[in-house]
Order: sequence, then C-alpha cells, then structure tokens
Amino acid sequence: MAPSSSSLPAVVLLLSVLFVSIPVLDGLELELGGDGLYREILRDETVLRLKELGKISDGEGFLERTFLSPASIRATHVIVGWMKDAGLTTWIDQMGNIHGRYEPSNSTDKALLIGSHMDTVIDAGMYDGALGIVCAISALKVLKVTGKLERLTRPVEVIAFSDEEGVRFQTTFLGSAAVAGILPESILQVSDKSGTTVEDVLKLNSFKATAAALGQVKYSPESVGSYVEVHLEQGPVLEALRYPLGVVKGIAGQTRLKVIVDGSQGHAGTVPMKLRRDPMVAAAELVVTLESLCKDPSRFLTYDEECGCFTEESLAGLVCTVGELLTWPSASNVIPGQVNFTVDIRAMDDVVRETIVASFSRIVMQRCDDRLVDCAVEHKHSAPATPCDAELTTQLELATRSAVSAMTPPSIGGGQRRAEPTPVLMSGAGHDAMAMARLTKVAMVFVRCRGGVSHSPEEHVAEDDVWAAGLALLRFVDQTVVAEL
Amino acid sequence: MAPSSSSLPAVVLLLSVLFVSIPVLDGLELELGGDGLYREILRDETVLRLKELGKISDGEGFLERTFLSPASIRATHVIVGWMKDAGLTTWIDQMGNIHGRYEPSNSTDKALLIGSHMDTVIDAGMYDGALGIVCAISALKVLKVTGKLERLTRPVEVIAFSDEEGVRFQTTFLGSAAVAGILPESILQVSDKSGTTVEDVLKLNSFKATAAALGQVKYSPESVGSYVEVHLEQGPVLEALRYPLGVVKGIAGQTRLKVIVDGSQGHAGTVPMKLRRDPMVAAAELVVTLESLCKDPSRFLTYDEECGCFTEESLAGLVCTVGELLTWPSASNVIPGQVNFTVDIRAMDDVVRETIVASFSRIVMQRCDDRLVDCAVEHKHSAPATPCDAELTTQLELATRSAVSAMTPPSIGGGQRRAEPTPVLMSGAGHDAMAMARLTKVAMVFVRCRGGVSHSPEEHVAEDDVWAAGLALLRFVDQTVVAEL
Repeated sequence: MAPSSSSLPAVVLLLSVLFVSIPVLDGLELELGGDGLYREILRDETVLRLKELGKISDGEGFLERTFLSPASIRATHVIVGWMKDAGLTTWIDQMGNIHGRYEPSNSTDKALLIGSHMDTVIDAGMYDGALGIVCAISALKVLKVTGKLERLTRPVEVIAFSDEEGVRFQTTFLGSAAVAGILPESILQVSDKSGTTVEDVLKLNSFKATAAALGQVKYSPESVGSYVEVHLEQGPVLEALRYPLGVVKGIAGQTRLKVIVDGSQGHAGTVPMKLRRDPMVAAAELVVTLESLCKDPSRFLTYDEECGCFTEESLAGLVCTVGELLTWPSASNVIPGQVNFTVDIRAMDDVVRETIVASFSRIVMQRCDDRLVDCAVEHKHSAPATPCDAELTTQLELATRSAVSAMTPPSIGGGQRRAEPTPVLMSGAGHDAMAMARLTKVAMVFVRCRGGVSHSPEEHVAEDDVWAAGLALLRFVDQTVVAEL
Repeated sequence: MAPSSSSLPAVVLLLSVLFVSIPVLDGLELELGGDGLYREILRDETVLRLKELGKISDGEGFLERTFLSPASIRATHVIVGWMKDAGLTTWIDQMGNIHGRYEPSNSTDKALLIGSHMDTVIDAGMYDGALGIVCAISALKVLKVTGKLERLTRPVEVIAFSDEEGVRFQTTFLGSAAVAGILPESILQVSDKSGTTVEDVLKLNSFKATAAALGQVKYSPESVGSYVEVHLEQGPVLEALRYPLGVVKGIAGQTRLKVIVDGSQGHAGTVPMKLRRDPMVAAAELVVTLESLCKDPSRFLTYDEECGCFTEESLAGLVCTVGELLTWPSASNVIPGQVNFTVDIRAMDDVVRETIVASFSRIVMQRCDDRLVDCAVEHKHSAPATPCDAELTTQLELATRSAVSAMTPPSIGGGQRRAEPTPVLMSGAGHDAMAMARLTKVAMVFVRCRGGVSHSPEEHVAEDDVWAAGLALLRFVDQTVVAEL
C-alpha cells in the first residue's frame, strides 16, 4: 500500500528532504507517483513479471525450468523483451546467459554487473533467481524513464544466468562460472541422467559448444568493476527481525561428512541393554552432540582446538545439520547393525568451520569408543567461504536503508525502524555471487521470504518487499553510478 | 571334545557318583559310552540330523522353509522317520503339525508335550526351531534304546509345529495356536502376498481346511499336563555368562510404538540454529532418552509413576529398541520436516512395561514442547508377558544343572561352574510356548548361540551345547516321567 499523505506527515517531510537531495524532479517522475518510490514499475509491474515468468515451465502444474530447457528458451525471449523495454542492448552468450547492457558513450570505466539465475529447481517457487533478474531490469527501467540512464558514469549490465541450481547436470553455476571464467572445458562432456551431455544441449539450441566458444563467455577482470545480486533469503532471519531486506556479509564455507556407525545387529527382545552395541543410540547421541557443539562450541573444544577464533561474530553463521539418517536392516524388532548419517557444517569463518569439523570428528571417535561401536567419518565435500566486498556492501547497505526508510511506514514495518541499519546476514546457501567472486568484488541483498521457505511452490515474497528490493537496487545504482548534474 | 580320563580324575569321580545315582546301568548304556551322556545319539546324531534338516530348503543356496512349502513337506517326511526311529507313534494334524507320541499302556495321566517349530525365516540358520524338535526326538530315542520308554508314567509327545515365524502369512504360531485352540477360524481366509489363502495352501496339501478340521487340531486342557520347549537363545546372555543352557522365567510382554516428530523443513545453510524446529535432533534426543529410561528408570519416573514395581528383578528383562528411523525429505542439505521412528519395549513385568511406555510418552511430549516440534505417539501393538510355570521350570533347572554338571569339564566351561545353578533368563522373543501357555503349564530351556545371532546363516550352536540340551531334556523326562524300578 502506498503512503497516504494525510496520515503520514513525517514521511512526507522525509520525502521532501529526499526530493531536495535529488536535484532534478522532472515531469516523468511526477507522473510515476512523484514520491521517488516508483511503485508502478518497482512493485506492480515487477510482481506481474515475476508471475508471468513463474508460469513459464517445463512442468505441467508446477514450475520447472532447467538449463536450456524448452521453457528456459521461452523465458529467454520474455526476459530479452523486458531488457529492451528498459533501454538495454541485449545478447545471449554461448552458455545461454542473457545480457542486457547500457554502455555510456565515451565510458571506459569498469562495468557494474547485476544478476541472478533464470533456472529453477523442480516444483520451484517463482522468486528464487527470477526476483534478482526482474528487480534489476525494473530498477534500470526507472533510470530510463527518469532520463538517468544517459547519465550513467560506467556500463551497467543485467545478466540472467542460465544455470545456478544445477538440477539437470548436478553441477551448479554453469552460467555464472562461465562468465567468471572458472568453468572447466570438461563440463561439455558432463551428462544428465539420460546420457545427454552439456555439449549436446548447447548444440541442440544452436550454440557452438566448443572450448573456444566457452572461453569467449568469460569476462576479463579488467572490464568488470563489481557484481551485485538480489536474492530471496531462503531463511527465516529477516522475517524474525521483521525487516524486508538484508545485506550479505558473505557466503558460507561448507563441509559435508558421512558418519558410519557399525554395531551389533540383534533381536530387539533378546539382547539385554547392557550387552548391546547399538549404532542407533550411538548415532542419535552424535546428532544431539553435533547440535550442542554448533550452538556452544566452547563446551566441547580442547585446549589445542581453542584457536581464539570463536568470537560471537565468527560463530553467527555456524550451522550444522543432519538431513539424512539411514538404519540397517531397518525393522522395528531388530537392533540395527549399521546406522549412517550425513553432516552438513557451514560457517562464514573457515577456521571456525574446520575447527568444528575436527572437533566433531574427535567426538565421534570418543563416543564410539565409549559405546564399543565402530565409527568412520568420510569427508565428502569442502568449500571455503566467499566473503562479500566490504565497501560494496556498505554502499548496498546505505541504499537498502534509504529504500526501506523511504517506504516506512506504512508499507513496511513500524516507524521506529526507519533509522535502523539494514541487518547483515550470512548466506548459508550458494549463489551466483560465489562464482562471480572469482572475477570481481561482489555484494548481495537478501529479501525477506515467508517462513524462510524456498525451493517449493510455497515460496513467497510480499509485494512490498519486492518493491523494497527494486528500490534499493535503484538507489544503489543512482547513488554510485549516476552522475550528478 | 570328550573327557579324557587321564587328565580329569575329578570328572571320573563325579561320573562314578552319577552312575551310582542312576539305578540301572544296563548293557545298552555301556554300549552307548557307559557314562550316561549318550554322546553318539545326543550329540553326534543330533548334529547330523540338524545339518540334514538345514539342507531341506525352498531356497537355492540358503535356508527357507515356510508354512507347508514343498521343502516343509519333504522335512515332514524326514522328521516322521526320526520319530518312528525313536519308537514313537506319528501323525500329521490338519494344520500340518507333526506329532510323535508314546502312550504308556493303561495310562490316563495328562501328556507331557515337548516341541518347537519346523518352519524358518528366509536365509535362516539351521537351529532356530529345529534344535528343539531334534533334541526332543533324540532324548526319547535314548529312552527307547535304554528300555525306559516302556516305563513312562504318562504320555510323552514330541510336536514339530508347522509355523511359528509367520513369514508367509505374517501371522505367527499357526501351528501351536491351533493345538492350543486359540487360532480363529478366520485364519483360513488370510492371504499371502500372491493372494493365496491359508485355506488354499491347506487344500493344496490335501488337508481339509475347514473350521471343524481346525477345531480337531485343538487339544483339550484335560489331556495335557505340561509343555516344554528347547530353543536357541537368540541373544548373547548365555555366551556372556559362559554357560551352555538357561531356563526361561517367562516370555516378555511387548509394546510397539511409532513416534512421529514434525518440525520445520528448511535449507541447511540458511536457517540459524536458534530459529530451527529440527525434528531430527528432537528425535535423536528421544532415542537417547529412551535408552537412559530403560537402563535407569528411576531417573525419569514421576512420583505417580513410581509404583514400587521397579525392583532389580522386575527390570532385568526390560529392553527398549529403536530399530527404524525415517527422515523426510532425506537430503544432506535440508533440515528434515519430519522424522519418525519405531519403539519396541519389552519386559517380563507388564506393570513395568506399561509404566515405561507411559513415562516415555510423557517425556516425548515434554521434549517436543521444549523444542517447539509437534509429536505424536501411536500405539501399534501390545501383548502381555507369558510367565513360565515355576514348578516345571524348577524341574527343568535341576535337569539342566545335572546335565551340564555331568558334562563338565572339559566339554563345557570350567570346573568351578559345575555346582552353579542354571542361569534364569527372560525370553524377549516370542515362542510356541507363548501359544501353548494358553493350553497348559509351560517351561523352556535356552541354548547358548554364538554371538547371540539368529535369523541368519551365521546362527550357530556348538555341538557340545546341542548335546547338553538333549541331555537336559533326557534327564528332565527321566526324572519326572520315568517310573523308578
């Protein structure tokens, strides 16, 4: 809902101040509402476009749009149209990424890239990925209609990456990794479940599918100044804080383990408690201990493990999860012979993560010894954290704060929140920014989502939060790339 | 290994004493070894017969013999032959049970029944069920060859029950329940996975398969004095005690529960530990607590639950097991939305079991409230305990003690154990004795098995332990049913 001038004199006052700070208030801006919030484009049109994109699916009755699928090709045409509508020059690169760029005349400065992904998981929500693309196009459209596009001091480019979820080929970031130049040539030979390779799919869609073509997708670091991404949070923090936007400190590092506990299989009725070597109870004890370790590491660390790295800040993003636990032979009247479970440990601070992994592995061995069961800890995957650029994040924070402040109240939250700094979050999930960080400085804005739910048709972002995200991007570009008159 | 007289003067002395205590040492007994241990029949032949029966299988390369299967019919012919060899009159009843009986002339006394089951699980061991049948036949064969069969004071009958495991029709005790008269007529219409009913299978094997025929299988309580069963322990207690035989105090009562824990499904990377409603950790905590509750109930019971029933004796057989735990959606990077697990609680004392079930259900609700997850406890099955008859068990205990004593050393255990009373065990597994207890007084002897393993080709009973079991049965019958001269 738009602010009503009669009920909110304080906001009107604030907006007047903002209007003063923006030198030119031309007729176009007044036509768009005159309040600098551009509701028609940043909220109404953006939400309509998200809904339109959310209907472009390979699935019947559910949303599925994987790398270069028929629906992805249809979506490409639609996105290209929107980019053109925003005054951008468009092209599709050899990995299917869609680019929409405004190149100021005589600018030799490094480009600002703004992007997210157009692919989805199976039975997806309509915001994951799409939100970042559509908000960026809308923000640039506002610059176009307000006549500011011509005043850009450096190139600005929106990219809709062709693959981030990695559903089809089980390899994430096909699009952004190609742009960042970190996609190995061998990717062309990776095949999906049906045996079709990335090369096949590219050729089927009239792409060259050669190592050389792949190399051409790569941007040179000299040509790019920064990358910014808007993405729904996929977690419940902003909802809990009752705040529509957050800035991202970095993307967590991750370790995946598999713990295998071997005990003595036996009859549930005939083996006394004292004589059991029950891997189920041992595994359960480890699951509970893992949670305690993550919530309060100091209770568990040895003198050697105490590395002085466990500040409150370093621990903020530490999360540990057991998502899968399998029992064998899995019958109600049999004490299991083997139980194994997955462990997912993520943290912003790599030293913290590695310390937790080492400490947990040590605890596993101790507890298993105590219970006379045999345990093994297999390391399945490990990736370091990706920090966001501090200066870029500060600029984004100022823009998000300014956007939320301008919209408050009554659209979002209570009046008291206006002056509050934007929450700073850690991203536990991977994003295109992770790949792009190999190319340039990155920063991200997270958008509140209902119940923290994503990868589900239940995924939802409030229309006013979509608006806030677009406005934040607009103000970020306006404040950092638009020349003052 | 047989005792070597040179190395063991103490045993020779003991055996001399035993010889004195058995009034008649006829020529036959001397032929059989002359030591009253009947190794040739009770060990060598019994083990050979177990191996022979263990090869009669419906499976190729593994042992499977289900209710009235082709292999069961072949096994029936073999068992009938052995019964006849032991001097017994044989017949097959209308549920496929094999009977071998010696009826003393002019006896109107109630019969002693000795039995176990001839069916097996799939990929079974060769001792479960078969051991009790073959040992009983061997014991009676010794009575025959020693001329004692004619001196029986009441009828003695060996029964090989046609179904105890319930593999084919998922309903246990088809054989013994029919003899006990507790099998409902409706059983005839129960079908296996292929749709074949019990009635079909009976008719296929030329049985009448009518309610009236089923009724004729039933024994009248007036005709039966007691039921005794030898069975492998299926647990590790005797092995841990280093004792070949045990007597059974009773068969435990059982409660089966299903606990369903619903939490908030979420991304393993994006939901902070503090905001989680993780059903995996909640379930794991309950699994650990269940073990603690079973091992030391006093730590958990409320004032109301403290019923004065938790004596050390009443708790001896209390066992609690989580054999199956399922996570949903079961992916390493997803905090589960639901976890459910089975609970199997058994105890000799029904009040103890019911108190533990109530206490655990209360703990589930408390812990789930604490963790803000939603829990439900479903009661799937409940059966009261079956106590064995105290007097009959005392007689069996004297017989087992006498048998083990006579064989020790060097065949079994150390010399010091000779005078020790036979261990008294609780049976956590169900047995034919459970059904037969509805008809008459029951008692059981458990035989040590390697590693407590059963329902597996790894199932193993030492040859000397087979011998001990047969000798115990022999002495039991000799001491309770054979008239002194």
